[in-house]
Amino acid sequence: MTRWRLTIEFDGRPFMGWQRQDHGPSVQQTLEEAIHRMTGEATSVHAAGRTDAGVHALAMAAHADIEKTVTEHRLREGLNALVRPQPISVTAAEQVADDWHARFSCIGRKYLYRILNRRAPPALDRGRIWHIPVPLDAEAMAEGAALLVGKHDFTTFRSVHCQSDSPLKTLDRLDVKRVGEEIHIEAAARSFLHHQVRSMVGCLALVGRGQWQPDDIRKALDARDRAKLGLNAPAEGLYFVEAIYP
Amino acid sequence: MTRWRLTIEFDGRPFMGWQRQDHGPSVQQTLEEAIHRMTGEATSVHAAGRTDAGVHALAMAAHADIEKTVTEHRLREGLNALVRPQPISVTAAEQVADDWHARFSCIGRKYLYRILNRRAPPALDRGRIWHIPVPLDAEAMAEGAALLVGKHDFTTFRSVHCQSDSPLKTLDRLDVKRVGEEIHIEAAARSFLHHQVRSMVGCLALVGRGQWQPDDIRKALDARDRAKLGLNAPAEGLYFVEAIYP
Repeated sequence: MTRWRLTIEFDGRPFMGWQRQDHGPSVQQTLEEAIHRMTGEATSVHAAGRTDAGVHALAMAAHADIEKTVTEHRLREGLNALVRPQPISVTAAEQVADDWHARFSCIGRKYLYRILNRRAPPALDRGRIWHIPVPLDAEAMAEGAALLVGKHDFTTFRSVHCQSDSPLKTLDRLDVKRVGEEIHIEAAARSFLHHQVRSMVGCLALVGRGQWQPDDIRKALDARDRAKLGLNAPAEGLYFVEAIYP
Repeated sequence: MTRWRLTIEFDGRPFMGWQRQDHGPSVQQTLEEAIHRMTGEATSVHAAGRTDAGVHALAMAAHADIEKTVTEHRLREGLNALVRPQPISVTAAEQVADDWHARFSCIGRKYLYRILNRRAPPALDRGRIWHIPVPLDAEAMAEGAALLVGKHDFTTFRSVHCQSDSPLKTLDRLDVKRVGEEIHIEAAARSFLHHQVRSMVGCLALVGRGQWQPDDIRKALDARDRAKLGLNAPAEGLYFVEAIYP
C-alpha cells in the first residue's frame, strides 16, 4: 500500500462540493471513481478542506491509499484522463508517509475570495467571482478585516451546520486589496469554521457598501450570535488556494 | 439617431465567432437581437475585430446606430439583461460622433495569447488557454518573436480565407513572457491578417519545444508561403484585449 498525496485544481461550478453527496456529483466521488477505474480499488480520497458546492480550488491537497504499484507520472496522467469531462485536474501526485493525512497533518489553509466590483456583470468569469455592482470602499473593508485577525470566538461567522467542537479559531491573515476591477480578500488560518470565510466576506461587503461601519464587524464578532451575521457571501467567489504542511 | 460605442467582454466558447453565421450563435447576432428586443430596431453591430469561433474578448470595441432615445446607463443595463444567458457583458456604452466607426476608425489592436505550460491540463481555465504539456523555452520564443516585429509580407501567417487586400502588415509588438505556469504572448498592430496571431503563436510554440530554431521563424516569413506555416495555434488561448482610437 502506498499513500499518495494529490494536488488538485477544480472548477466548483458543476459540483455539490468536495464531499460525496447522494444528490449530485462531488469532487471526491469523481476522483474515487477514477482511482477505481484505474486500479480496481475502492479507496477514499481525503482532502485538507471539504469545500462547499460551487467553491473552487487552485491547489487542494488530498490523499488516497493505493495498493497497486504505479508511478507518479502514470497516476497523475491516468487520473486526468479518467476524470474527464469533469473540470478537475490533478497537478501533482507524490508518495508520502503512511501517517501523513491531508486533513489532520495540515497546519495552515489559505483561501482567496474574488469580488468583481463594476457595473457590468462578469462574462469570462461567470460563476467564478461575486459581482457587486455598487462601488466598494476597499480601505474601510480592510479596516473591518483587521478587527477579525487573531484568536476569537467566531460563532457569528459560523454556519449552523458547522461540526467543529469549538467556535474558537485563530485567524492569521485577512487582507483586502483592490486588483483592477476586482477586490481580493485573502484569508489564512490553521483551520476555518464552516462558512467562516464567506461569512466574513459577506460582512466586509456590507462595510464596503457603507451599510456597516468597520466597527460593526467588531460588534458582530462580540455578539457571538449567528443571527447578527450581516450577509453570507456566495460560494462562486471562493477559492481554496493552498494547504500547508510541516 | 445616435451612434453608440459599446465595449464588450465575452467568453468565446459558445460562439461561432463575432460575425453572424447561419450555423450557430455569434456575439454579433446576440447583441443585435438584444438591441432589437430593447428598441424594436433592426440595427447592425460593427466590431473592431471579427474574432473567430472560440476566441475571447476582454474589451472588444463595437458600434451600433439606435433611433430610440436611451441613457448610457439604461442601454448598458438593458443589453446585459437581454443577452443572458450568453456569456457577454457590455462593460461600457457611450455616445460617439456619427462618423466614428469601430472598425475603420481603429488605429491599433491588441491581442493576448495564453499558453498553460505544465503537465496537468487546465481545470479552471478549460477552453480559455492552450495547454502545452512539454516545457517551453520562453527565451527562444522571444528571440523568434522579435524577428516578426516590423513591416513584413505575412503571407505565411495568413489564413487562406483572409480577405485583406494586402499581406503587408506592420507588427508593432510581439512580446513573450512567462507568468507562473503560463506563457503570455502579447501582440499589437494597427491591424492583423486573418489567423495572423494564431499562426505566429503556433510557430513560436514549435520554437519553444525546440522543434524549430528561432531563425526558422525568419525562414517561414521570408518564404511568403502558407504551406511553410509550422502550426496554427487553437482559438481557445486567444483574447482580443483592446482597440485603440485617435
